[in-house]
Amino acid sequence: MIPPVDIARLSARLAALGRVGALDGGGVSRLALTAADGAGRALVVEWMRAAELEVVVDPIGNIFATRPGIEPGPSVMIGSHIDTVATGGLYDGNLGVLAGLEVLAALDDGAIATRRPVTVAVFTNEEGARFQPDMLGSLVHVGGLDLAAALEVRSIDGTRLGDDLERIGFAGTAPLGGVTAAAYLELHIEQGPVLEAEGVEIGVVEGVQGISWTEVTLGGRSSHAGCTPMRLRHDAGLAAARIAAGVGEIARAIGGDMVGTVGSLRLKPDLVNVIAQTAVMTVDLRHPDEATLVEAEGRLAGLVARVAAEERVDAATRSLARFAPVAFDPALVARVEATAARLGHSHRRMPSGAGHDAQMLARVCPAAMIFVPSVDGLSHNVREHTDPADLARGLGVLATLALELAGPVDAPKPEEI
Amino acid sequence: MIPPVDIARLSARLAALGRVGALDGGGVSRLALTAADGAGRALVVEWMRAAELEVVVDPIGNIFATRPGIEPGPSVMIGSHIDTVATGGLYDGNLGVLAGLEVLAALDDGAIATRRPVTVAVFTNEEGARFQPDMLGSLVHVGGLDLAAALEVRSIDGTRLGDDLERIGFAGTAPLGGVTAAAYLELHIEQGPVLEAEGVEIGVVEGVQGISWTEVTLGGRSSHAGCTPMRLRHDAGLAAARIAAGVGEIARAIGGDMVGTVGSLRLKPDLVNVIAQTAVMTVDLRHPDEATLVEAEGRLAGLVARVAAEERVDAATRSLARFAPVAFDPALVARVEATAARLGHSHRRMPSGAGHDAQMLARVCPAAMIFVPSVDGLSHNVREHTDPADLARGLGVLATLALELAGPVDAPKPEEI
Repeated sequence: MIPPVDIARLSARLAALGRVGALDGGGVSRLALTAADGAGRALVVEWMRAAELEVVVDPIGNIFATRPGIEPGPSVMIGSHIDTVATGGLYDGNLGVLAGLEVLAALDDGAIATRRPVTVAVFTNEEGARFQPDMLGSLVHVGGLDLAAALEVRSIDGTRLGDDLERIGFAGTAPLGGVTAAAYLELHIEQGPVLEAEGVEIGVVEGVQGISWTEVTLGGRSSHAGCTPMRLRHDAGLAAARIAAGVGEIARAIGGDMVGTVGSLRLKPDLVNVIAQTAVMTVDLRHPDEATLVEAEGRLAGLVARVAAEERVDAATRSLARFAPVAFDPALVARVEATAARLGHSHRRMPSGAGHDAQMLARVCPAAMIFVPSVDGLSHNVREHTDPADLARGLGVLATLALELAGPVDAPKPEEI
Repeated sequence: MIPPVDIARLSARLAALGRVGALDGGGVSRLALTAADGAGRALVVEWMRAAELEVVVDPIGNIFATRPGIEPGPSVMIGSHIDTVATGGLYDGNLGVLAGLEVLAALDDGAIATRRPVTVAVFTNEEGARFQPDMLGSLVHVGGLDLAAALEVRSIDGTRLGDDLERIGFAGTAPLGGVTAAAYLELHIEQGPVLEAEGVEIGVVEGVQGISWTEVTLGGRSSHAGCTPMRLRHDAGLAAARIAAGVGEIARAIGGDMVGTVGSLRLKPDLVNVIAQTAVMTVDLRHPDEATLVEAEGRLAGLVARVAAEERVDAATRSLARFAPVAFDPALVARVEATAARLGHSHRRMPSGAGHDAQMLARVCPAAMIFVPSVDGLSHNVREHTDPADLARGLGVLATLALELAGPVDAPKPEEI
């Protein structure tokens, strides 16, 4: 059964939420727990209350809106986040939340009662653009980070997370982890170019890549670019360039889903005729398989040591972040795949390259994600866009599977998830 | 004959001039035509007047202090500059000027009359740190840049060069090019590590390397580091790194005096988890031989085209500066070498990696330079240092050769230069 979802209503709400914190020239800025985030939350809660959902807010600001089932127990939870990066788009996160509300609206419109409750969850500070770590709200929800510690986290503006929550009126009192999930589904834009490049409509997300972020600092000797022969140089910039080029070689040599990126590279003094004294660069390595990620890390360490020795510079490395890969529940992933197939959508299994709240929920219940294509692969970008036809396909898979998991009362009792 | 130079007096004057515009923690900042430069010039002119030299200032602010010869005609000119970079040292430029004054003082102390006049020249804005082009004063002096155009040049602060000259009281009225040179000598610190590394006392400078500065701008596509497979990337950062690493390879492959430097490299948006949209980098190539420099430029162009194609990014290049190599007068270079040998100093022929006023004077008269070692090869750096013993050796070569060129009146008439 496909609930009677209305893609126009979803699109209108994506646009309306996108006007909160809108940037001149497109896109949106709703950094977590700013006034704009508060206004966005208020709008979403207004929609939740208008739908007569049972809305609770926990002490870390996560919002849960539940449509009761005819039987008590854990919910089928649909969730994501509505905070954005500083120059974000209208889809990242917002789609998962508003698609969840659209599923509930469709159940109402179709007068479909479910055995299990269905809950829409809005998690705090998924982006990590204003508070570290990212996925903070869902991490606290599943017990992976102590509430007291999370409330003490400082923003990039120096404010205390707990104070910001109070200020925007979202320091809730509902028990932490009080809304439990029988299963968790998250509809999200791909944030990459694979689906578009391959002409595939639905991404069946098998898990989240492991992430390894390393900062490499190279210390050389600043000297005159004209007066210092190559053999007497200690060029931190040349060492950095060789390592950055080598990161690309490592990723290509391992192949498959391996990605390696030097997104930040800064030289000092950064002048045309001065050999760089220092270079600070970041290396972002990701792979869905832990053993392969470890292999890539090992090759990076070897590369840094070799280049530093050859260029006669000092090298220091520091781990900025390390997350093991997360595998979503195989049975639930298979049901996403089967649903997409049943609805006639082309689909492929794929890892998620980015982190998502779903990976935190996967610690406490079966979780899975549905990806829809991102135009030009753009995300964290004001030009982030997904065509309405793709939104509709993703929404259809989400609504169909969520209803199946929740169990329509006029259908046989659903199997255990 | 060695004039009775006094290294202690020279060292004291280097220190005194270094106190004008001194930076906390060492070094000096006397950017051209700032108040600090004006104060430094005033101090030097005070020393010139105290020595009863004939001081004239031309309309671009070049200062000439002449000790007359017994015959009229062009001078043996000893010169350099006293402007510095923003975080400069006490020796770059200042040494050449103050060593010149020390030569004149020694002639006075020894009551040595010369046939030709001897002139100490202080050229405006050699560094190019506040006004472009560098070596501006000597360039105008030799007729390579029109005075009216030079006076209109804007500083990095937006001020007009002519106005700044007026403000510090150095918009002179002496005829441009009025003080002519029979020969030009410049004593300078090496600004590189070669003499120190080889344990050589005197650098006999054969000429100035040709300089080719290219800005390379790479345009890729910003996308998520986790969600974009290597095969679908347009990574401007990776392209930049490969080109920067390749510049090192080109320089090493050509070998000898070839140097290649990527001193500046900037990524946008420069974030750990975002593939760079753009990269802007500078490439500094230098070689004393024009044909080899052209070869290196050709290899760079091929590298940029190849990497841009392979990484599927746009590449644009722009020449920021291009100077052909300058060869100093072979006979005068040989006399520097012979003088160093006669005084018992170890010496080697070498190119200058940096530009100097001497290369402008070489357009109008025989010119040569004498290098003394830089500790750790440091220059344009507050830790710039040369040991007094090395200063003394360089000063001795300069004074001996200058006197020989000027012709002591009690010696046979000097040969034509």
